[in-house]
Amino acid sequence: MTLFDGMREQNEPLTTKIANQIAELIQNRRIVTGERLPNEFELAAELNVGRGTVREAVKLLVARNVLVIERGKGTFVANTPGVVSDPLGFQYVQDKMKLVEDLLEVRTLIEPWIAATAARCATVEDIERITMQCNAVEEKIREGVSHCQEDILLHTLIAEATENRVMPALIPVINQSVELLVEITNWSLGEETIQTHRRIVEAIRNHDVEGARHAMDAHLDFNRQRIIKIKNEQ
Amino acid sequence: MTLFDGMREQNEPLTTKIANQIAELIQNRRIVTGERLPNEFELAAELNVGRGTVREAVKLLVARNVLVIERGKGTFVANTPGVVSDPLGFQYVQDKMKLVEDLLEVRTLIEPWIAATAARCATVEDIERITMQCNAVEEKIREGVSHCQEDILLHTLIAEATENRVMPALIPVINQSVELLVEITNWSLGEETIQTHRRIVEAIRNHDVEGARHAMDAHLDFNRQRIIKIKNEQ
Repeated sequence: MTLFDGMREQNEPLTTKIANQIAELIQNRRIVTGERLPNEFELAAELNVGRGTVREAVKLLVARNVLVIERGKGTFVANTPGVVSDPLGFQYVQDKMKLVEDLLEVRTLIEPWIAATAARCATVEDIERITMQCNAVEEKIREGVSHCQEDILLHTLIAEATENRVMPALIPVINQSVELLVEITNWSLGEETIQTHRRIVEAIRNHDVEGARHAMDAHLDFNRQRIIKIKNEQ
Repeated sequence: MTLFDGMREQNEPLTTKIANQIAELIQNRRIVTGERLPNEFELAAELNVGRGTVREAVKLLVARNVLVIERGKGTFVANTPGVVSDPLGFQYVQDKMKLVEDLLEVRTLIEPWIAATAARCATVEDIERITMQCNAVEEKIREGVSHCQEDILLHTLIAEATENRVMPALIPVINQSVELLVEITNWSLGEETIQTHRRIVEAIRNHDVEGARHAMDAHLDFNRQRIIKIKNEQ
């Protein structure tokens, strides 16, 4: 008996094909986040396949975070369709320390530009959101619990204040280094994070473009110094 | 009757949980690309769930490009596990022109660094691969067929010549702008692409760090000028 032969993988191409057709249909009809998909019968008729195939294709799109199923309500377009967590497969990279360093290198190229652009473009609402999120990070650090998610959200909100719509999508991907660092070593999350975050936020609030760029540089350099210290201690 | 209620979405959390456990198992046992997964019976016994659940979890991991099923052979770890195409959901963005501009902004921050670092680090083998790929792009352009995939591969190979392992994973994501540009308008793929690519490759071959940086800048600027021209013509 072959492995998983109950899965009828010969049907995989058809499921994938129908999944792609449903994805196209979402785009062409401009069905947006939170809107309901046509039901299983309608899709089966329209795409000229059986309901079983439609069901498998929908499962595939759920796995890819394009659709969400709400029990008793229907199938809806996801919040950020097609955005998966860990899309570059970093969890499968063996050398996590090297990964953290490489991610930090990417952040050093992108995030000072983001901070500077946020300082130039941020609206009153952006600044309020960023300030509140900066406080949320500090609270977590002071409570001595993981601040990773709040930290990534702060950097994402700063990216949202730029007019570039790709940056906020990239931040959670390249900021996985924050969680990895915590994973690698139980580093004491010192005052430095609080202080350097505050400097970034203050510069953005004052529309101080170069100040924001330098503050982000300093923040990332603090992270880099941490990594060097950890490596030397190994 | 509710939509898709045959999908028993109440089981979704268990499937997800088991999928995550299988992903962990792959990492912990260091099962690498191309290696076979334990079979359905073993996994079911080990994770203490039914074979049906294991089967659904494996389907989910196939949808996420972590596993591939080869008929009659078994289930294997994928080539670049967890790396999905279009991981940031760009196909669901409505304003494609803005997307192309935003992607180009990201490329402008990252790719000149990549070219410079490739010029510093490239081995003889890297240079050979890059040169051959540059020729492959030219061939496609001269034949008048789509050069998108070859173009993205060229930029990926240059990124692989840096010692940073995140960059080659990022390139196909942010270089979707190449395909989008072609999609938006049937621009004539002129001599400029050939010439600017050649300048980049030549600088890398000569280990001319600043030359490679400037050549990449010029290449991206050529793209930017195209976009402005297209926008003005609309």
